[in-house]
Amino acid sequence: MDAAEFRRRGKEMVDYVADYLENIEKRQVYPDVEPGYLRSLIPEEAPEEAESYEDVVKDIERVIMPGVTHWHSPYFYAYFPTANSFPSLLADMLCGAIGCIGFSWAASPACTELETVMLDWLGKMLKLPADFLAGTEGRGGGVIQGTASEATLIALLAARSKIIKLIQADHPDRSETDIISKLVAYSSDQAHSSVERAGLIAGVKMKKIPTDNKFSVRGDALQKVLEEDRAAGLIPFFFCATLGTTPSCAFDCITELGPICNAVEIWMHIDAAYAGSAFICPEFRPLLNGIEFADSFNFNPHKWLLVNFDCSAMWVKKRSDIIGAFKIEPLYLKHDHQESGLVTDYRHWQIPLGRRFRSLKMWFVFRMYGLKGLQAYIRKHVGLAKEFESLVRADQRFEISADVVLGLVCFRLKGSNELNETLLKRINNARNIHLVPCQLAGKFVLRFAVCARTTESRHIQEAWCHISHLASELLQELPH
Amino acid sequence: MDAAEFRRRGKEMVDYVADYLENIEKRQVYPDVEPGYLRSLIPEEAPEEAESYEDVVKDIERVIMPGVTHWHSPYFYAYFPTANSFPSLLADMLCGAIGCIGFSWAASPACTELETVMLDWLGKMLKLPADFLAGTEGRGGGVIQGTASEATLIALLAARSKIIKLIQADHPDRSETDIISKLVAYSSDQAHSSVERAGLIAGVKMKKIPTDNKFSVRGDALQKVLEEDRAAGLIPFFFCATLGTTPSCAFDCITELGPICNAVEIWMHIDAAYAGSAFICPEFRPLLNGIEFADSFNFNPHKWLLVNFDCSAMWVKKRSDIIGAFKIEPLYLKHDHQESGLVTDYRHWQIPLGRRFRSLKMWFVFRMYGLKGLQAYIRKHVGLAKEFESLVRADQRFEISADVVLGLVCFRLKGSNELNETLLKRINNARNIHLVPCQLAGKFVLRFAVCARTTESRHIQEAWCHISHLASELLQELPH
Repeated sequence: MDAAEFRRRGKEMVDYVADYLENIEKRQVYPDVEPGYLRSLIPEEAPEEAESYEDVVKDIERVIMPGVTHWHSPYFYAYFPTANSFPSLLADMLCGAIGCIGFSWAASPACTELETVMLDWLGKMLKLPADFLAGTEGRGGGVIQGTASEATLIALLAARSKIIKLIQADHPDRSETDIISKLVAYSSDQAHSSVERAGLIAGVKMKKIPTDNKFSVRGDALQKVLEEDRAAGLIPFFFCATLGTTPSCAFDCITELGPICNAVEIWMHIDAAYAGSAFICPEFRPLLNGIEFADSFNFNPHKWLLVNFDCSAMWVKKRSDIIGAFKIEPLYLKHDHQESGLVTDYRHWQIPLGRRFRSLKMWFVFRMYGLKGLQAYIRKHVGLAKEFESLVRADQRFEISADVVLGLVCFRLKGSNELNETLLKRINNARNIHLVPCQLAGKFVLRFAVCARTTESRHIQEAWCHISHLASELLQELPH
Repeated sequence: MDAAEFRRRGKEMVDYVADYLENIEKRQVYPDVEPGYLRSLIPEEAPEEAESYEDVVKDIERVIMPGVTHWHSPYFYAYFPTANSFPSLLADMLCGAIGCIGFSWAASPACTELETVMLDWLGKMLKLPADFLAGTEGRGGGVIQGTASEATLIALLAARSKIIKLIQADHPDRSETDIISKLVAYSSDQAHSSVERAGLIAGVKMKKIPTDNKFSVRGDALQKVLEEDRAAGLIPFFFCATLGTTPSCAFDCITELGPICNAVEIWMHIDAAYAGSAFICPEFRPLLNGIEFADSFNFNPHKWLLVNFDCSAMWVKKRSDIIGAFKIEPLYLKHDHQESGLVTDYRHWQIPLGRRFRSLKMWFVFRMYGLKGLQAYIRKHVGLAKEFESLVRADQRFEISADVVLGLVCFRLKGSNELNETLLKRINNARNIHLVPCQLAGKFVLRFAVCARTTESRHIQEAWCHISHLASELLQELPH
C-alpha cells in the first residue's frame, strides 16, 4: 500500500469509524459467540502472497464485529467507562504517523515536553498541590503510565527502594532481602486486584485494611494494624489509598490516613483510577482533600476524561524517588542533555522502555472540550447515575447497596444472593444491556456504571424498564 | 466535535499523515530545540472554553514538529528501527474506534481470540516448535506485550514463582523471602538494560555472563558461573539469552546454553527484540536454532515487522507457568466461560490489566504484505546494511567492530575513543543523519542501524559520503 492508496483507504476508514460510532446502539452490546468462534473463520496460516485491502476490510464485519463487546454502546454499563472521543481518535492518528519511541528527551523532545506540560495542565485542573507539578523548577511532576496497575506498581517499587536505602544508611550490614522480608504494604480490603498483584510482583507482604460500613478505610483501622505489625517486628512502608473503589466507588478517608502515613514515613499512594476525572469539578474536588499528604497520585483520563486508552496520569512529589528506583544508563541510551535539570527521561519513570506520543491525545481533548466541556461531561454522567438511583429507590423490591457519589450505582433485589445472581444472568443473557457484579459485605450486588459518551436519559429509562421487567418475571416464578 | 465534523477532520488528518510520511526526508531528522523549548510556546493552563479544531491543528507545525526526532526519516539510523506502515495505521484507527479493553475473554472475545490466532500465525512464520503454539489443544501460546522489557519481566516473575513453588513443595517451612534471597538469574554482559532492571524489580540477584570475542555467551561460560554459584549456596533459576544484542546484534549460543538450562531446570527466556523479525526468512532461521530448549521467547514486530508500536510478541511453552504466577480473581472480573479450556484471559499474562485490540495491526499487516512481502522487506534492510558495511570496509581509516549479520553495522575510526566520540558529536550536530554509539570491548563504537521503511541505497550512499567527509575534516585537524 502506497501513500496514494492510504489516502483513499484512510478516508474510507474514517467513514467506517464514524458509521460505527454513530450507529453503535443498533449493535447487540454483548456478543453471542462461544469460545473458539474466531479460529474457524480465518485461515490457519498467514498468506504467502499479499491480499488486497478489500479482502481484509470485508472481514471486519464477518470475523471481528460478531465477537466484539461494544464498550461504547449506550447499553454498556459494565466495569467502568473507557474513554472514546473524536479529538482523541484524531490525535492518535497523528501519534501513529509520528511513531516516535520517546524513552528519553533526545528520542523525541516534543514527546517528552508536551507530556510534562499536559500533566501540569491536568494537575492544575484538579487543583493538585504545587508540589506535584513540574513547572520549570519543581521537584515533582507527572507522567503518563499505561494503566493504573503500572502506576501502583511503580509507586510501590519506588517506596521499596526508598525504605531499603533509608534502612541501609543506618545499618549498612542489613541485606536487601532481609529488609524486604520484613516490609509490609497496605491497602483497603476494597482495593483493586492490581494492588495485591503489585505486592506479589515486588515480593512484599500486602495486607488489606478492613473498611467501615461505607467501605472506606479510616485512620483508626490503619493505626491498629500498624501498631500490631510494628510490635511483630515488621516494617510498614507503603499504603495505597483508593478514591473510588471498583466494587462500589467508595473513598478511603485520606484526611485521616495521610497524617498517619506522614508521621511514620509510610509512602502514601492514591489510586483514583475511575473517580479522579471528577475532581476537575469544584463540587467533587473535596473528595480529593488530603491529597497534600500523598507521595504519589494516579487516575485514568482513559476512563472518564475522554482520552482514549491508554493514558493513566500519575504524579509524584519527588521525582528523584521514582527515578532513583530504576536508573540504569547504557551508552546507547545516553544523550548530551540528560544531566540538565530541565530534561526528563521518562524511561526511568516506568516499567517499559518504549512509549508512544500519548500526550497528543490529552492536548487535543483538553483544547477541543475546554475545562467547561469536560466538567459538563462528568456532570452529565453523574446526573444519569442519580437518575438510575432514583428509579431503583422508587421500586420497593430493590435496594441501593452503597452511596451513589459519582457515576456508579450498586443495587440489588432485596433477597438472597442466588436471586440476584439469577437476575444478573438473565440480564446479561438477554444481551439488551451489559452489567457486571461485585461483592459488598458478603452480598452479591449488581453494578450499574454509566459508561458511554452517548448515554442519554432515554437509555437509562430503557435499561431500568428492562431490569425491572426481568425482575418481575423472576419474582413471579418464585414459590410464595 | 460531532461525527460529521470527525468525518471531515479525519480525512484532513489522513492527508496530513500521508503528506508527513511522503515528505519526511525534507525535514531535519534530529531537532534543534533546547530543553524546555515547548513550555513557552503554549499556555500555562488548559483553556476554560473549547477551542476550534483549526486552532489545535495549526499548532502541530508550530509547537510539535520543531521538537520531533523523525524516527521514520530515511536519515534516521539510531537505536533500532520502530515500525510504521500504512496497513498498521489503518488497523490502529479501527482499534481506537472499537476501544475495547480486552483484559478477559468476555471483555471482548474478538480481541482475545484474534490475538491468540495471530500469535499462532506469526509463530508458524518463524517455524517455532509446536509447543509454543496455542492451537485448539496446545498448552503453550502467544500474547502481545507492550515491550520486550515487560516480556522479560513477566518471564522472570513466572520463573521466580515456579522455583519458589518447587522448593516449597519439598521444604514447606522455607519462606518465600528466604528462597528469593538465594535466587540468581543470568544474562549476557551485552544484554539490554531492561534485563538488569527486571532483576531489580523482582528483587533477585542478576549476574552478567562474560561473552566471547563475538560478544556471544557460550555454554562453558554459563557452566562455570553456575558451578561457582551452586557451590556458594545460591539457587540459579533463570537465564535470559539474547539473540541480536542492542550494542552489536550479537547472538548468544543457545544450542549450547539451552541443554545446560534444561538439564538443571533453569528457565531459559530468549529476548530477540530486534532480530526476531528476520527469522521469518529461511536463510536467517538458523539463528533461532536452539529455540526448542527455551521456556519463553519474545521479539518485537513493532521494531522490524511493519506493525506499529506497541506490539511485542511473546510465547511460552506452558501457559500455566505464566498464568499461575499472578492469578487473582475478583468478582467484577469473573465471567461464565473462564473455566473453559478454550478461553484465554490475557490479564493473567501481563503486568497491566487493560489492553488494546493490538492484534488488528498484525492481521492487517500480515495479510496486506503477505509472508513474501515481509521477507522482502527484511532482506532489503539487510542488503542496505551490507552495502554500508562494504563502504566502511573500503575505507582504510575505518574498521568494522562486529560481524554484520542483519541490519546493524558497528564501525569506528581506527584510533582513540575520543576521536570517535568527536566524530559522532559532529555527525549528530550536523543533523543530516542521526546515530547513537555503543561500547564494545572498551571501545567507543558508532552504530548504524537501517531503520526507516523508506530507506534506499541512495540514502546509504549519501550517509556514508557525509560521514566520510566529516571524518576527513576531523582527521585533517589532528596534529601529525
